[in-house]
Amino acid sequence: MSSSATRTGNAPAGLSPRAVVTDRDIAAAYAIDASLGSTAPDAYSVVRARDRADVVEVLRHAQEQRIPVVPQGARTSLAGGSTASEGCIVLNVEALDEITELDELERFAVVQPGVVNADLKKAAAAVGLAYPPDPASSATSTIGGNIATNAGGLCCVKYGVTADYVRGLEVVLPGGEVIRTGRRTAKGVAGFDLTGLFVGSEGLLGVVTSAVVRLVSAPDPALTVLATFDSLDAATAGILALRRDRFGPSLLELLDAASISAIQQMADYGFPGDCAAALIVSSDRPGHTSEDVQRYASLLDDAGATDVAVGDDAQESDALLAGRRALHTALEVKGPHFTEDLCVPVARLADLIRAGEEISARRGVDITLSGHAGDGNVHPCFFFTQGDPDSQHQAQDAFGDLVVLALDMGGTITGEHGVGTLKKHWLARELGEPELARQRALKAVFDPLGIMNPGKVL
Amino acid sequence: MSSSATRTGNAPAGLSPRAVVTDRDIAAAYAIDASLGSTAPDAYSVVRARDRADVVEVLRHAQEQRIPVVPQGARTSLAGGSTASEGCIVLNVEALDEITELDELERFAVVQPGVVNADLKKAAAAVGLAYPPDPASSATSTIGGNIATNAGGLCCVKYGVTADYVRGLEVVLPGGEVIRTGRRTAKGVAGFDLTGLFVGSEGLLGVVTSAVVRLVSAPDPALTVLATFDSLDAATAGILALRRDRFGPSLLELLDAASISAIQQMADYGFPGDCAAALIVSSDRPGHTSEDVQRYASLLDDAGATDVAVGDDAQESDALLAGRRALHTALEVKGPHFTEDLCVPVARLADLIRAGEEISARRGVDITLSGHAGDGNVHPCFFFTQGDPDSQHQAQDAFGDLVVLALDMGGTITGEHGVGTLKKHWLARELGEPELARQRALKAVFDPLGIMNPGKVL
Repeated sequence: MSSSATRTGNAPAGLSPRAVVTDRDIAAAYAIDASLGSTAPDAYSVVRARDRADVVEVLRHAQEQRIPVVPQGARTSLAGGSTASEGCIVLNVEALDEITELDELERFAVVQPGVVNADLKKAAAAVGLAYPPDPASSATSTIGGNIATNAGGLCCVKYGVTADYVRGLEVVLPGGEVIRTGRRTAKGVAGFDLTGLFVGSEGLLGVVTSAVVRLVSAPDPALTVLATFDSLDAATAGILALRRDRFGPSLLELLDAASISAIQQMADYGFPGDCAAALIVSSDRPGHTSEDVQRYASLLDDAGATDVAVGDDAQESDALLAGRRALHTALEVKGPHFTEDLCVPVARLADLIRAGEEISARRGVDITLSGHAGDGNVHPCFFFTQGDPDSQHQAQDAFGDLVVLALDMGGTITGEHGVGTLKKHWLARELGEPELARQRALKAVFDPLGIMNPGKVL
Repeated sequence: MSSSATRTGNAPAGLSPRAVVTDRDIAAAYAIDASLGSTAPDAYSVVRARDRADVVEVLRHAQEQRIPVVPQGARTSLAGGSTASEGCIVLNVEALDEITELDELERFAVVQPGVVNADLKKAAAAVGLAYPPDPASSATSTIGGNIATNAGGLCCVKYGVTADYVRGLEVVLPGGEVIRTGRRTAKGVAGFDLTGLFVGSEGLLGVVTSAVVRLVSAPDPALTVLATFDSLDAATAGILALRRDRFGPSLLELLDAASISAIQQMADYGFPGDCAAALIVSSDRPGHTSEDVQRYASLLDDAGATDVAVGDDAQESDALLAGRRALHTALEVKGPHFTEDLCVPVARLADLIRAGEEISARRGVDITLSGHAGDGNVHPCFFFTQGDPDSQHQAQDAFGDLVVLALDMGGTITGEHGVGTLKKHWLARELGEPELARQRALKAVFDPLGIMNPGKVL
């Protein structure tokens, strides 16, 4: 963390009491996010908005004074989407954390951006409903950030991503104008729908101050199967068989050999030593779950699994997820790394993993490759030696090799984390320069002076 | 139909053979759509594009010559979205009717815009999958038109609308540039997602030449319950109980007293004479359908239904839908009318119907009110005497009265048909002038000279 020379002078007057952070150390914590190499700039100020009026005032003032604004929530971004930039006002909206409406009958909630994902899930569950979007950061990340990145997670294979649940938004634009997009009703097609444009826009267009999100019937507690494989091809055959199943899984995660080895080095989670891959598969289909996991087990057996364990009840199922849950910590223990986010057609997943192994061997970079196999969305991790720039460059080049292959497979540079600062230079390769130019023109409709999250994405 | 003086002179050279329609009568058929009072302008030309190159050439030429372009498919628009405008080139894309890819594993189809909705459904069903969006015009309307209006239909209560199934688009912009939006992979968040902006844009931004649409597991054949009620309140209680059911219906349609009376005047479909409303409710949940409809029947009984009939098999279920299916013809037989498309919160549906009855009595206008009760989306029909302008104005004023009430209830002027020409003057009331201005600015990013479908929506 840098010893940044924060200045509070560029924040507007007229905000809620204590909205402007004056303590330098506290401010420094708001200048960075969870992305690799995130550092605070020399000068910035931090506003913790207490209400919508604070957001309006910051955006009015910032537009007038042409001050860059970096909107942020819980700062769990792995792509550098919420890191402070030079001379900016960091506009944190975590304190806008109310669920202002929860309509059981119409099946939507109206939430402020600072509501933590897990808290919305809890509130929905309390009335027999569910808010499915389920990023791994669910316990800490906020709905505002989930919307900014169109966050995915573990359940997407059945339930889709954040965009599939956002019905409408209230957004404060640069200059302070408040607009509403989308609808509260089940359907509605009056005018262009801007909601999808704001979802995933990574703070480049405006600041969401309220969202209408769709809720669904609560699922049953999930039951889970864990299968291990001695070849990637067998694991892939298992994934493809599950994709074809009529009652497809609610979770379909893959761990590659390197991930399993990292987990086993921490503690014995029961994975065999020569394991090439493991699949963790759940069903939460109401009423049918035991039948589903038994059928999944048989499909995985047919695909050539070396070992298949079925969780017959919630407790056993939970135990089978323990290894997957330990992954994040195991990777932290393994050493310094950055976590990436590629998505390819599901049928190309094995090719991507094999390519990762080849790149790892060729460049001498440790790479683990695990993630949401059911969507073809994996999170490769690239390891390096702290303080060794060469090693870090090798890791970045290894990622570059893998990106090129993923794009050639018809994949994308980011399935769910966003582009942020770290993947900015890859975006042109995915979209092409003419499309980038159009995206800039679209941004200008909402942010003509370019004050919103400058230096990110585009 | 007007005896329009078509001209072929404003269409470009260099198109596929026979793409330009030279027969005046044939051309006239392309100048109008299914909306009330749709008439051909004095001068226009009609191009039936044979391939993407024709679309590119028309949009290149039209931009260069500043000629308005009206894109269209099967012309089933009830809102006047695809009617020719003065001096335009009608650009019909019905002949681009290939399903170019159907990937069972990745669960998507790539379709050209002229593919008929029902044909895509059939192709998906042939491999055990389903394309859910189900407008009443399914047998004739095209995917391009469905995308242009973000079409809904009968199944939305369970499956959502067209936008929920469009993963990515290929669009030709004014000037002839071809862009791709969205993705083919299950997830992807690289850059702003323009797909949602094009879905529902009613031909104002560009012409879709290909779409990647998501497919899902095929449902079971639906089973159906029909319940009649002697009060609107009882019917509403039934709807609310079904909305709260954990295994909610795949179809939840309402007929009001005036609709039932129109149906019964055609033939005896078994509705009692003093019936205030009927609900038709289906389940297509795999494996559980008989259990579901029995439970629906009991919920409707508890809500105060006077009669409940349960279809125990597909044939009986089909018979119970006969009255609902006869509605369209019954309304045609009843007399000249226009069909509207309001959506309100489900809990306000009874209020909307009662308001319709009050307006009908006060203004002496026959109004029927039926539709997708599960979504709060109804299609009121307003009847008038052909050739009597006063009567037609009364009908339009009656609609105006109902729109104002629907908006006050938090509803929208269009749930699924689009704004087109007929509801253009209501859009400002729903969105407000500042939002309309922004929508025009967004249009200008893609269509700076304003050649796309001018006079529609905005």
